[in-house]
Amino acid sequence: MSTDSAWWCEYAWLPSGQVASRVLVTVVDGLISAVEAGVDRPSGAVLLRGLVIPGLANTHSHAFHRALRGRTQAGRGDFWTWRQQMYGVANRLDPSTYLALARATYAEMALAGITCVGEFHYVHHQPDGVPYDDPNVMGAALVLAAEQVGVRLTLLDTCYVAGGFGEPLSAPQLRFGDGDADGWAKRASALEGALEGGPHVRIGAAIHSVRAVPADQLGVVADWVRDRDVPLHFHLSEQQAENDGCLALYGVTPTQLLASSGAMGPVATAVHATQLRGGDISLIAGTATGVCFCPTTERDLADGIGPAGALLAAGVPLSLGTDGQSVIDLFEEARALELDERLASQVRGTFSAAQLLDAATVAGHRALGWSDAGQIAVGMRADLVAVDLESRRTAGAGASADAIVFAAAASDVTDVIVDGVAIVRDRRHLRIDDVGVALREAIEAVTP
Amino acid sequence: MSTDSAWWCEYAWLPSGQVASRVLVTVVDGLISAVEAGVDRPSGAVLLRGLVIPGLANTHSHAFHRALRGRTQAGRGDFWTWRQQMYGVANRLDPSTYLALARATYAEMALAGITCVGEFHYVHHQPDGVPYDDPNVMGAALVLAAEQVGVRLTLLDTCYVAGGFGEPLSAPQLRFGDGDADGWAKRASALEGALEGGPHVRIGAAIHSVRAVPADQLGVVADWVRDRDVPLHFHLSEQQAENDGCLALYGVTPTQLLASSGAMGPVATAVHATQLRGGDISLIAGTATGVCFCPTTERDLADGIGPAGALLAAGVPLSLGTDGQSVIDLFEEARALELDERLASQVRGTFSAAQLLDAATVAGHRALGWSDAGQIAVGMRADLVAVDLESRRTAGAGASADAIVFAAAASDVTDVIVDGVAIVRDRRHLRIDDVGVALREAIEAVTP
Repeated sequence: MSTDSAWWCEYAWLPSGQVASRVLVTVVDGLISAVEAGVDRPSGAVLLRGLVIPGLANTHSHAFHRALRGRTQAGRGDFWTWRQQMYGVANRLDPSTYLALARATYAEMALAGITCVGEFHYVHHQPDGVPYDDPNVMGAALVLAAEQVGVRLTLLDTCYVAGGFGEPLSAPQLRFGDGDADGWAKRASALEGALEGGPHVRIGAAIHSVRAVPADQLGVVADWVRDRDVPLHFHLSEQQAENDGCLALYGVTPTQLLASSGAMGPVATAVHATQLRGGDISLIAGTATGVCFCPTTERDLADGIGPAGALLAAGVPLSLGTDGQSVIDLFEEARALELDERLASQVRGTFSAAQLLDAATVAGHRALGWSDAGQIAVGMRADLVAVDLESRRTAGAGASADAIVFAAAASDVTDVIVDGVAIVRDRRHLRIDDVGVALREAIEAVTP
Repeated sequence: MSTDSAWWCEYAWLPSGQVASRVLVTVVDGLISAVEAGVDRPSGAVLLRGLVIPGLANTHSHAFHRALRGRTQAGRGDFWTWRQQMYGVANRLDPSTYLALARATYAEMALAGITCVGEFHYVHHQPDGVPYDDPNVMGAALVLAAEQVGVRLTLLDTCYVAGGFGEPLSAPQLRFGDGDADGWAKRASALEGALEGGPHVRIGAAIHSVRAVPADQLGVVADWVRDRDVPLHFHLSEQQAENDGCLALYGVTPTQLLASSGAMGPVATAVHATQLRGGDISLIAGTATGVCFCPTTERDLADGIGPAGALLAAGVPLSLGTDGQSVIDLFEEARALELDERLASQVRGTFSAAQLLDAATVAGHRALGWSDAGQIAVGMRADLVAVDLESRRTAGAGASADAIVFAAAASDVTDVIVDGVAIVRDRRHLRIDDVGVALREAIEAVTP
């Protein structure tokens, strides 16, 4: 399949933050070689109707959580009771069912305009904790799933070696563990070697949380990342109980603990950051660490509303993730970032639509280690997403970032191009015939 | 068109709160005459795939706000700056453009499974406040729009005679006014007479708010309603400034003022109720007044999170509205009611999925004066909505109220039947060919 191509966009959202009309995007070897506005469509250029935006980056995904949608949302409880239900699905996964579920889930993401996924991956071993013959077979399933769907992947291989502050892994957590951070580093290094050169995948690292990695092992992961200059992600202060436990055991906040362990920095992304305290925000900003919000998940899990406006004001780069997959729609995540800030502050417009769209595109790609993606500009990867401007949702809103963020839904995405290759046309995935059927079959295989 | 028909549902959600399979719904003269579960499909019964739920009631709508979607969501400000933008559209409406915009908006609602709309209507007169030759021509446009789309309407004709506490109407508000509440009552009575007997419409009343109707005139509206036993709706404590102004002028909260004026009671519905204070909840509960939440609008307008859990605990009937039309999706409103409660309380499951679906169906219909709609049961109006269980969003979630509320979107609605007559089949409106085009054209006619 050639990756030389040309796409003529009725409208396109450009890095200036402005929308241009009649935009020709020329692609050579998967990269954008020219962007020309106000031109007629040459023969041979493919027509993209509506407003074309850069590919969306889903900065925080647990693919297998897709099996929980509509099954764990009701019923009384909190984050911790939900976690027990989530472990139930985690323990039914094997390399084959994990591949099928991730493939169907990434296909749903592709239909939504997501061209790059950050997979926070910790289901490493057999349910009893014994490694598979290939100890990275589960990670390889995710890599293959992304390849089959046609999206790019940053596999954030996750260190998860404790069941809580000062606690061993519990039974359902055994398969997440590698003994200790050195064991994790050994396995992650092997994964990195096995996948070297795959053009659609990068390997990064994750610290599950300060609950799951003891303080004296955090530096092992931080050093592994520093040696490689790859992304490092971690769940941070999603729940007050994490803050309480960290303060009780270490006398510092999770942010302070991670910072003092060398885990903060320009390649680092803190996920959630909902319950930050005291000087946490200035510590995050001062180390140039990014923050990934997952607003629909933070609603679902009753986490609360994180300090998005304060982080923005401090200059922290913000990105967005679908996390628990109760919704796969980065337009909804983008508007939820602003709308939940409105609920907390009772002020409108903390974020502009362009800032929200930046979070969903270029900032997310940077957080996942793809600094060459997320903008329609010369030299960038040719990831293009066409959004219908005349659906029942978007009609009348005009061609603007505002229309995308505040009117569109994932189902308004009509066409998706990744590295110059179309993977979705006219709302249909070109490689997976019926994504709904694929999802149902994959979910039925891992649920009671 | 005959309204005798039979519909065979793959699954149906019944008043028990349970889902039954293979359900035959027989309809005579637009009413359900039989509901049989676990039966084969007889020849002549129309197949409805997926999960069939009762028609959805949109308890609070301002149809013309649909023109604002994607145009007023960005930019700094608050409720009051947004209101100036909204007035700009209101002042461009005339009977013809109002009809076209309401028709396209109601068609979007029909596609989303909404079979009954409560229209909170206050754009009565010419922009300078002078009545049209027919002083109810604008209300008649809404009635005609609903008829053309095939949905039922409760026209909540709204008394709006002051521009704020102790203030006359401002220039953009002139067309809302009728001089005083007696003037409103005279016009509303004429409207009622003109529309008598229309099977798809009922006339109710609204007090815009305690800002817009002086205390000594509230009783006029309450008496008008009491004489007729029709619904009475009012915006209540959407913003703290309304509470402050009411306390300053009258020394009581808006809830206390409305209660003492006779406006509270079983036919009354308070819209928003976001910023209730002190004993307001027990006053609402004690008078059997209902509350309509509009969660996506309350997010959009930075209103804050209302006390949904406390109102539920007090036994207050809750319903749902799309209000500002930034989203037309009652599934999203239903889940937002619970999700925003989670953000405020950090507890999951205050509402069950069945309670949320009740709010969107039977409770909403009751709030609009249609006690014979909103349930799939013998004697009820034959309003049926089929929801796809194998879309990319719903696949894998099973056939349950949870799947509808926590996984489905409006675009998963495939078929809509109102009073036994299909108005949407296979996601297409049978009377309006392209709802997106209709929306765009109607919106372009009323925006600069």
